[in-house]
Amino acid sequence: MNKDRKISAPVIRRLPRYYRFLGELIDKNIQRISSRELSDKMGLTASQIRQDLNCFGGFGQQGYGYSVKGLHDEIGHILGLDNRYKAILLGAGNLGKAMAVHLSFEKIGFRLIGIFDNDPNKVGIKINDLTVMNEDDLERFCQENHPDAAIFCVPKSSAPELLEKLYKLGIRNYWNFSHYDLAFEHDDIIVENVHLNDSLMVLCYKISDKNGQKEN
Amino acid sequence: MNKDRKISAPVIRRLPRYYRFLGELIDKNIQRISSRELSDKMGLTASQIRQDLNCFGGFGQQGYGYSVKGLHDEIGHILGLDNRYKAILLGAGNLGKAMAVHLSFEKIGFRLIGIFDNDPNKVGIKINDLTVMNEDDLERFCQENHPDAAIFCVPKSSAPELLEKLYKLGIRNYWNFSHYDLAFEHDDIIVENVHLNDSLMVLCYKISDKNGQKEN
Repeated sequence: MNKDRKISAPVIRRLPRYYRFLGELIDKNIQRISSRELSDKMGLTASQIRQDLNCFGGFGQQGYGYSVKGLHDEIGHILGLDNRYKAILLGAGNLGKAMAVHLSFEKIGFRLIGIFDNDPNKVGIKINDLTVMNEDDLERFCQENHPDAAIFCVPKSSAPELLEKLYKLGIRNYWNFSHYDLAFEHDDIIVENVHLNDSLMVLCYKISDKNGQKEN
Repeated sequence: MNKDRKISAPVIRRLPRYYRFLGELIDKNIQRISSRELSDKMGLTASQIRQDLNCFGGFGQQGYGYSVKGLHDEIGHILGLDNRYKAILLGAGNLGKAMAVHLSFEKIGFRLIGIFDNDPNKVGIKINDLTVMNEDDLERFCQENHPDAAIFCVPKSSAPELLEKLYKLGIRNYWNFSHYDLAFEHDDIIVENVHLNDSLMVLCYKISDKNGQKEN
């Protein structure tokens, strides 16, 4: 891919969906797919698919479709999934534990190298092959291991202080579940927010909309 | 709002963000906001904001901005957050527990009325004020309580069988963390999927993109 070419934010948001769907095709031993089949499955128009894929080279051949494996690997490469960014997890509560246990970090560009909590009852617990450390150890750990990213599974109230600590320790990339606006104080950090409430609200809308249609 | 007017999917996706941001303004006692201020905060153009808000009535007055509370309440109403849809949670592992404990269902249109798991070690555990039930009790429970929605915090492998069971019991609305394509077999169900991997891949892209720019 030409690194100088800027990919727009909506296309970037769609890349993981392409990647996921193409991975399922590989599991089913499907080797080629047309833009029409891809579009049916993705809920996009065929022309939008072609436009998206043209952004980074265009793997299609007229009348012949796309190479599933070629496209999958290229999208993985564009997403940077062949990296092993070192991530630390802040918060070993239910959510933090769920992330540490269920996500296959290695498959999506990261390696989880440390888990921290300030609750003495959680420090020392083993999650996968990592032992939960005290937040007091953050400074030493970061100076020794230089993590690239931090995963914030902490309550909103703990987020500001923790952010300042990690910012001073040089961490500029955050995956944020805390509902606190991490980017507010620092415009040189990268934040990807997860707002689970938003998703549930959309479900609420869809149910209400369907019920409303029935009533009409 | 005119119920006959169809709101487009991208606008619907943005509504929870408006709602969240306006809620924060209310907490700060801010009563009016201009479309330019809203757009700065939301990362959209002012004209897009006006277009979005015109979809459902238009609360702005020229040169006077929007009523924060009026807009917040109207968006909540459009999202259907004043409902109390009865939801059951499938899976009382770390992720299920995190959802049950951290989400304020009542504030976003739902009421959690039951939690189920098939692991005997989890059945009987109390989460908030609910006792985890055995999945064998699903039929009786659904016939007595008629849940509106199911939250799938189960592994992909358990999802197909569980879906068939709940579908037969009349449940048509799903919040899905399972990575299984629930809508594949049934086109009369509403599914809102949460793909946490996708979000982490976007973070990976952003880090790689930044690093690439540095290298260039």
